[in-house]
Amino acid sequence: MPDVNRRGLMLVLSSPSGAGKTTISRRLLEEDDNLELSVSVTTRPMRPGEVDGRDYHFIDDARFKEMVAAHELLEHATVFANSYGTPRGPVEEALSAGRDILFDVDWQGAQQLGAAMGQDLVSVFILPPSAMELHRRLVNRASDPEDVVRHRMAKASDEMGHWDAYDYVVVNENIDHSVGGVRAVLHAERLKRERQIGMADFVNDMRRELDEG
Amino acid sequence: MPDVNRRGLMLVLSSPSGAGKTTISRRLLEEDDNLELSVSVTTRPMRPGEVDGRDYHFIDDARFKEMVAAHELLEHATVFANSYGTPRGPVEEALSAGRDILFDVDWQGAQQLGAAMGQDLVSVFILPPSAMELHRRLVNRASDPEDVVRHRMAKASDEMGHWDAYDYVVVNENIDHSVGGVRAVLHAERLKRERQIGMADFVNDMRRELDEG
Repeated sequence: MPDVNRRGLMLVLSSPSGAGKTTISRRLLEEDDNLELSVSVTTRPMRPGEVDGRDYHFIDDARFKEMVAAHELLEHATVFANSYGTPRGPVEEALSAGRDILFDVDWQGAQQLGAAMGQDLVSVFILPPSAMELHRRLVNRASDPEDVVRHRMAKASDEMGHWDAYDYVVVNENIDHSVGGVRAVLHAERLKRERQIGMADFVNDMRRELDEG
Repeated sequence: MPDVNRRGLMLVLSSPSGAGKTTISRRLLEEDDNLELSVSVTTRPMRPGEVDGRDYHFIDDARFKEMVAAHELLEHATVFANSYGTPRGPVEEALSAGRDILFDVDWQGAQQLGAAMGQDLVSVFILPPSAMELHRRLVNRASDPEDVVRHRMAKASDEMGHWDAYDYVVVNENIDHSVGGVRAVLHAERLKRERQIGMADFVNDMRRELDEG
């Protein structure tokens, strides 16, 4: 396509654990040069092998509270005394530059992002093909105590209850088909009229030339 | 994907003449078994090689007026004393059966279809890459008088003025890329939550199984 200015989009993927979201995300990021993963801030300590600014922006509690107060986070959550959040600045910058950002968040994160960013959001919910298959994927270690497995199943069911707040739904029976589906969503959403912010000028220039003969 | 009931969609393609819409339509219909071309009714006489029910449903003026009066046409137009229209019955039937229908119509047809069918419609506008390229494609026969070419250019410019009423916009610089773009739109729109009318049951059944352990 000719160089028509486009606003970037926020691709939000959610799913119960075990439905294949992480694999789909990784494949999309590998194959698509215009898609990048959102880097969250967190107050939890850095783990061996992690890189500040790549895996997370590691910040302290005071800075986190400051960011929340200044509305610098598009969404945030606290899990077991550790806080996580999505900084607004890099997202606004990427969207303005026509770059797309991938978010791997749960339904609450998706809801907060939607409330903050509305039209820029494209949300996809990934479902497992069956309860039995999800169970198989969640019981991956024979040593898991039964109540741990039961807790995972209940959590998965809870997350799945929010499928109907998403724009698109993909049932992940075959990983290649599912990647193809989310890739099609990304491709199509880039062609949406309202994201192609340079199109009005492009068309007007062409029409002027045609009308002048 | 597992067998989740889906409502079909109406894929509407419009473009100025010469922008490549016909080639894109033909390729999509060839490669996609679930997509069929809408067959219009018309009052114009059958031409050699045409087949009733494949190219058009050939009907007389009285029957056409009857269909208009009975709201059996989703859109209709009269061009040089010949009338054309899209019968409602086959469209409703296809949508209910989860089959998708392609419409090759101008902006007025698209507008009427949208008014009649709303959410079932997915509209794509195809643009030429430049005025010069469109001019080249419209002057395909050296024998065309200049005023015929000028008329075609003016008509193309007029049609292009309606690009901003469409859901998606594709600039057809490379035919393979453009087919890929419209294919992605079709693929993505099939994954839209509200078209997957069997999904609520599918998810509820899975959750029940998970909750029962």
